[in-house]
Amino acid sequence: MSGRELVVLGTASQVPTRTRAHNGYLLRWDGDRVLVDPGEGTQRQLLLAGLSAAHVDRVCLTHGHGDHCLGLPGIVQRRLLDGATTPLDLHYPAAAAPVVEGLLAATGPAAQTVRRHPVDPPPPGGTVVARTPRWTLSAHALDHRVPAVAWRFAEPDGVRFDPAALTAAGISGPAVGRLAAEGVLEVAGRQVRVEEVSVRRRGQVVAVVMDTRPCAGAVEAARDADLLVCEATFLARDAELADAYAHCTAAQAAGIARDAGAHRLLLTHFSQRYGDDGGPFEDEARAVFPDAGAARDLDVVALPARRG
Amino acid sequence: MSGRELVVLGTASQVPTRTRAHNGYLLRWDGDRVLVDPGEGTQRQLLLAGLSAAHVDRVCLTHGHGDHCLGLPGIVQRRLLDGATTPLDLHYPAAAAPVVEGLLAATGPAAQTVRRHPVDPPPPGGTVVARTPRWTLSAHALDHRVPAVAWRFAEPDGVRFDPAALTAAGISGPAVGRLAAEGVLEVAGRQVRVEEVSVRRRGQVVAVVMDTRPCAGAVEAARDADLLVCEATFLARDAELADAYAHCTAAQAAGIARDAGAHRLLLTHFSQRYGDDGGPFEDEARAVFPDAGAARDLDVVALPARRG
Repeated sequence: MSGRELVVLGTASQVPTRTRAHNGYLLRWDGDRVLVDPGEGTQRQLLLAGLSAAHVDRVCLTHGHGDHCLGLPGIVQRRLLDGATTPLDLHYPAAAAPVVEGLLAATGPAAQTVRRHPVDPPPPGGTVVARTPRWTLSAHALDHRVPAVAWRFAEPDGVRFDPAALTAAGISGPAVGRLAAEGVLEVAGRQVRVEEVSVRRRGQVVAVVMDTRPCAGAVEAARDADLLVCEATFLARDAELADAYAHCTAAQAAGIARDAGAHRLLLTHFSQRYGDDGGPFEDEARAVFPDAGAARDLDVVALPARRG
Repeated sequence: MSGRELVVLGTASQVPTRTRAHNGYLLRWDGDRVLVDPGEGTQRQLLLAGLSAAHVDRVCLTHGHGDHCLGLPGIVQRRLLDGATTPLDLHYPAAAAPVVEGLLAATGPAAQTVRRHPVDPPPPGGTVVARTPRWTLSAHALDHRVPAVAWRFAEPDGVRFDPAALTAAGISGPAVGRLAAEGVLEVAGRQVRVEEVSVRRRGQVVAVVMDTRPCAGAVEAARDADLLVCEATFLARDAELADAYAHCTAAQAAGIARDAGAHRLLLTHFSQRYGDDGGPFEDEARAVFPDAGAARDLDVVALPARRG
């Protein structure tokens, strides 16, 4: 839980508004800073959020449409101006490579700081593209007008002590620390292993599902997610438009959250046609999935408490 | 005078602030819309200014640094989304071609709407790059860390009737219209030509001088300008920094305006180190050139009244 939150940098879809900048989502996960879909203006939004670009060490693009990536060159340059000394890992659908290469070419020498990780269309189950000691990053196929992927950040499951089991085993005080350190402890002549007095601690999961029709890959990416960030470009009354442009309605985003067994749903990527009030999106989604909210620019959303 | 004004879209230099977006200057000249140096976020700034991108028919870049051009792909795409049906003429220093080509590649098929006009380093006197019936556009060499040019928009000189000369020639009422239409009029048996009863009307001039040390090309671009938009990244107390980074102080920008015989000076491109108050820049410039003002985002500056 320590220091895990999502900073919302922009919530517009194709057309920004007075209160909604183009997309941008910064995931702060302990010491990591992962930026998803930097739309145009993201470097200024970071500044408005009081954050430095220097600490962004990974960027994930869901696809190559402008509202999801035109802020990339600004971030690549801004990192260096802000003092970054480490490379930037960049993940994107392989089909977006021409867009990505163009944007990187525009940054001049700064492009040399970028490590490219194109991902081919993921098979069912997704493609793991990075593993750190803290989480696994996987891409899941979406259903948009161009190849697009959802991004899933999943912490490995762990264990935590079960207080009742510790008591039953007669372990308390400093002995708990010795058991944790050594994995086994002799109590009244019996060997107690740490597994015997622990329960599974489920790892936390964050999923970002951008431009897509409702699809299996979206549900897969969001499976058991503690926080699902999902596009909701349209309201249900415009479901035909949503389908025609390969987007979700708020109700459909909520359906993905429900089908995935997600914990919390954050709606975003709203069409400007509905004005700046996220209320109608929330109302529509909550009828399907109660723990849904509409994102606003510069919202900071803490990861919900662990479950299970 | 009709409909000639400059819309200031951004006034920051390398680092945007809460109140200053990256550069962007839209010149509205009768029916023309020319955008100079679209920095990142310009498409949203246009929207905040209540303007459509569809009517932008020409973009001029002073050089290829990110704060002056990263908004280009957004403008190229936004024009089409806003309904543009005409090509976009794009002028830029030839040395910026790799940056420009990268940014255009990122726009996909929209790049096909762009007509490229790279300009080689201009000789003394500048290079005319476009002529319309309403103005001539020329590029003038600047002194920056990369090849950079100033842009000068100059209306051809014209003539207007001199009321005293008309009276002396005995021409009034509908006869004035006949003289204007036919160029010559018989009055009391004498041929009066339009030139005899007219005075020269000087054409209006707007110049945009961005990143540069003070130099001859800047003065040349700004010669007799009704409105000079000039960078003033630093204050005079940081003149060494200005020189090291090849920029102007406010006093130096004012010196360019004075040496050029400009009419009005609009300062912009301020370093974030001085905060959001343009007052110190104005004070410093006015000691050298009285009609100087510091631009703010979304200012609309009408061209001053004609002179001469």
